Amino acid sequence: MKPILVFQTDFTYKESSVCAMYGVVKSVDRELEIMDGTHEIPQYDIWSASYRLFQSMRFWPRGTIFVSVVDPGVGTPRRASIAKTADGYFVVTPDNGALTHVKQSSGILEVREIDESVNRLRGKNTEETNVFHGRDLFGYCAAKLASGSITYEQVGPAYPVDEIVTLPIHQPKLENGKVSGIFEIGDPNFGNLWTNIPLSLFAEAGFAYGDFLHLTIRRKGKVVLAEKILFHKSFGYAQKGEVIIYNNELMKISLAVSQGSFSERYNMSFGPEWEVEFEEKPV
Amino acid sequence: MKPILVFQTDFTYKESSVCAMYGVVKSVDRELEIMDGTHEIPQYDIWSASYRLFQSMRFWPRGTIFVSVVDPGVGTPRRASIAKTADGYFVVTPDNGALTHVKQSSGILEVREIDESVNRLRGKNTEETNVFHGRDLFGYCAAKLASGSITYEQVGPAYPVDEIVTLPIHQPKLENGKVSGIFEIGDPNFGNLWTNIPLSLFAEAGFAYGDFLHLTIRRKGKVVLAEKILFHKSFGYAQKGEVIIYNNELMKISLAVSQGSFSERYNMSFGPEWEVEFEEKPV
Amino acid sequence: MKPILVFQTDFTYKESSVCAMYGVVKSVDRELEIMDGTHEIPQYDIWSASYRLFQSMRFWPRGTIFVSVVDPGVGTPRRASIAKTADGYFVVTPDNGALTHVKQSSGILEVREIDESVNRLRGKNTEETNVFHGRDLFGYCAAKLASGSITYEQVGPAYPVDEIVTLPIHQPKLENGKVSGIFEIGDPNFGNLWTNIPLSLFAEAGFAYGDFLHLTIRRKGKVVLAEKILFHKSFGYAQKGEVIIYNNELMKISLAVSQGSFSERYNMSFGPEWEVEFEEKPV
Repeated sequence: MKPILVFQTDFTYKESSVCAMYGVVKSVDRELEIMDGTHEIPQYDIWSASYRLFQSMRFWPRGTIFVSVVDPGVGTPRRASIAKTADGYFVVTPDNGALTHVKQSSGILEVREIDESVNRLRGKNTEETNVFHGRDLFGYCAAKLASGSITYEQVGPAYPVDEIVTLPIHQPKLENGKVSGIFEIGDPNFGNLWTNIPLSLFAEAGFAYGDFLHLTIRRKGKVVLAEKILFHKSFGYAQKGEVIIYNNELMKISLAVSQGSFSERYNMSFGPEWEVEFEEKPV
Repeated sequence: MKPILVFQTDFTYKESSVCAMYGVVKSVDRELEIMDGTHEIPQYDIWSASYRLFQSMRFWPRGTIFVSVVDPGVGTPRRASIAKTADGYFVVTPDNGALTHVKQSSGILEVREIDESVNRLRGKNTEETNVFHGRDLFGYCAAKLASGSITYEQVGPAYPVDEIVTLPIHQPKLENGKVSGIFEIGDPNFGNLWTNIPLSLFAEAGFAYGDFLHLTIRRKGKVVLAEKILFHKSFGYAQKGEVIIYNNELMKISLAVSQGSFSERYNMSFGPEWEVEFEEKPV
Repeated sequence: MKPILVFQTDFTYKESSVCAMYGVVKSVDRELEIMDGTHEIPQYDIWSASYRLFQSMRFWPRGTIFVSVVDPGVGTPRRASIAKTADGYFVVTPDNGALTHVKQSSGILEVREIDESVNRLRGKNTEETNVFHGRDLFGYCAAKLASGSITYEQVGPAYPVDEIVTLPIHQPKLENGKVSGIFEIGDPNFGNLWTNIPLSLFAEAGFAYGDFLHLTIRRKGKVVLAEKILFHKSFGYAQKGEVIIYNNELMKISLAVSQGSFSERYNMSFGPEWEVEFEEKPV
């Protein structure tokens, strides 16, 4: 069976760009199966593109081809690439940082630059346009790879994995009974904020479900929230409107307001400027 | 042919939760066909989840499996269930009220609680997380059922249909020539409001297309609108910007502004506090 | 292989109308492949519906059936039609102007009015409703055509192509070294505005990538912007926040702010009242 194509972009569905891109895929091979990852990555947000790949990839069948197009540098000389991960997936993307989390978590075995001279859409009177590589290059080349009409080697020349553009990733730590990290990403729907701290570090620190933990959040070094908060299995254990510390779907410590939005209530977001610290204190 | 899976949630497509959930389904069985119902149910709105199932279910082939995840109580001891309707569909959902309309309209033959010990996703390092049953439990178990790898009996133990959690449903009535009911739901896109009054009750009262009816709307018993309004076949029969009473797509009496939003113009919503009454009066 | 069905509407995915419509299609024939074009056409905006068909159609396999439902006149005597284009596609739509761009660009060979007496959904207790032709008429009839259960001739009676409702299309021109046209449509996501001027007219005028052009925008004849702007291959060639003139994905001259929104910054939109003029001037 031919691999599935999963697409994520910052195009939205407000007009018919996604439609044109999918039409190209189906014109390469009617049999190909296309799935929406998300088309609502925040505009130009390469960090989110990278995180969303990490968040979903391992739940798909091996061999699945992810096409990620968040591409503020389209038409300029950034590389258009296809990476092969150590756990058997492909990622088709501008090499602009979107491979950061997958490189760190799964590892990348090989990366190739798409050869535009053979793997770009022709014959639709769009050869001279330079602004929609999702349709003309990434989608088209991914479809050729998925259909088997080209091999991975025929995508284009390999280049060193070390040359892949990556964004800095922050590491959490446990020191003197304090667990600290940053808000690494958010859930833009429910308003939860997700740290980079794995549940295992809480276990190492001796924090257990049911504990009240002292939480300190700093923005650019300045304390913006300091409170004692319940740590439990899910937001369902907090009363509606209460804050809770929980273990999220990727086994990372997160903050939520039960049936509310943590990020809106406290006007917080994610990134290295947001430091988060937890410690157990005598009640 | 294996049954189709239709998903509805309050997750939105803003990040890649839906993507991860669908990946799990495809990892169970590549052949399964997944369709989006909607992922824009208002957050935590179990009533809307229930209504949206009723609104769309009967138009699908018999045997279709609906997966509905609006689950504010995730991780707490609410039941995770699969119901079998009298007209041959399955609904996979937290048993929190989402089965209300389907139980009343189609009837439910049997309901089973998903046995987490056998029908929960394993091996993705997410066993200890308790916040994403859409991915780990509902989606996964629905996929196993659709693929035929488990029978309906193997979902888990049956429990009495009478124990299904339901929300109160209001009945419309015809009395002294007056037809009354409530706004039961809205169309959040076009801004129409839909009553619980079937067209048949209008027919019984003698109201006919082309009639001007006296409409009274009360909120918590207090009159908020009293006007004479045209009742006709569709909003196309009103001038742009005019209010119209029409028979909606589910044969329920509804209010619209032609090419405008009724709910926005009058700042109205739905629920038992919104009572609606129609009567014919001498012109 | 049966043709693909591509749907575009102004329904959004906020409730389950799209779901009901797709259920009807799958009930006609389980094998049919359904793709979302977009369900976020601005409400009642027939012009955008027409443009979005033009924007995406030619990228799909020949034979693809497009179902476009932007239908403010539903239930009134406007025609419900299926057009066959000169390049081998079908468009199922209310004949209300949605065929404008396709008629002009591809040409329409034949058009037929859907015969409601045979090609309308029955047996779901919705015969008496007149507000959801997307589900009961367009979707249903398109599914029958795609499945092969009716031929194109069996859709209903043909009528003269000249009777197709079209909206006025403005032509760009080159005069005295000035290239002028209108903003014909926008990209509601990134905020770019697209003129009706083809790249070829710029070439004819001697404008080349790298040139700074004098841009004048008039609204209802009054100058609202007059500036010298870089013309280049893509927004990637402008600094973040700078305005750029570029050749868009359909080979039409467009205006963008790099990583920003042109239409928001200048509070501009599209339509015949927005005139755009370019000329080369001595630096």
